[in-house]
Amino acid sequence: MNEDLQPGQLLARGVCRHLRSHDFVSVEELVPVPGLRVDVMALGPKGEIWVVECKSSRADFQSDNKWHGYLDWCDRFFWAVGADFPTELLPADTGLIIADPYDAEIIRTGPETKLAPARRKVMVQKFARHAALRLQALRDPRVTPSGIP
Amino acid sequence: MNEDLQPGQLLARGVCRHLRSHDFVSVEELVPVPGLRVDVMALGPKGEIWVVECKSSRADFQSDNKWHGYLDWCDRFFWAVGADFPTELLPADTGLIIADPYDAEIIRTGPETKLAPARRKVMVQKFARHAALRLQALRDPRVTPSGIP
Repeated sequence: MNEDLQPGQLLARGVCRHLRSHDFVSVEELVPVPGLRVDVMALGPKGEIWVVECKSSRADFQSDNKWHGYLDWCDRFFWAVGADFPTELLPADTGLIIADPYDAEIIRTGPETKLAPARRKVMVQKFARHAALRLQALRDPRVTPSGIP
Repeated sequence: MNEDLQPGQLLARGVCRHLRSHDFVSVEELVPVPGLRVDVMALGPKGEIWVVECKSSRADFQSDNKWHGYLDWCDRFFWAVGADFPTELLPADTGLIIADPYDAEIIRTGPETKLAPARRKVMVQKFARHAALRLQALRDPRVTPSGIP
């Protein structure tokens, strides 16, 4: 399936693989609220919610004017970039992951800002629905995200 | 993918398709607790948890001595059977779905026994992890359910 993935999606794949080693499961391109779409949302063993934005280049990072909005929807926020990315551009008080298409490494976790219980409940449920819909669409291609066409 | 599905799995596919029309998302073969594995677990828009056991024949139903155990892990429990199944065998106080590989119909919903909030939270999270792991395994086959081999 690799041929079709964009540079940012290849980073996301490496990130999701690595997060498994921390017992986090992940989905890509989840919409926490209309107008926002996170590259990776990960769910930890205790219900932790992490968001990882994957930036394949300086330009990709500099054109992102929405990332502050993601902070409200996670306990921790990370950037994931390639080894050649100028990491001094990234805000110091955010998490940092160095990734390639095959694996990744967490360099710093950044601060934790715990979600309120009600919002965590909503996010875990959104995560569950997103993952189940994508899974069903792959296993049973006749089903569209909105149901049977 | 159809060629590899067992009769019960074909019923499950029809059930999962139909449940989408009720705004429920579904996963198959989830393990709520070691020793139990439900055919279909569905998650509703308000966090409702339904379990559907799919029986392809009288023998398949009569050999199931675990289904009482599923009642503790859902708000509603259903049987899903084909149109030719002798439904008089099924306990009257359970839900009933008539299914085929392509669709299904809910005949009766049975009683609702609401999960305690703490257990619902656990089940939604188990559902989320199960769906995300299966999704990742399909999208990125190098990943096994326990991580990178």
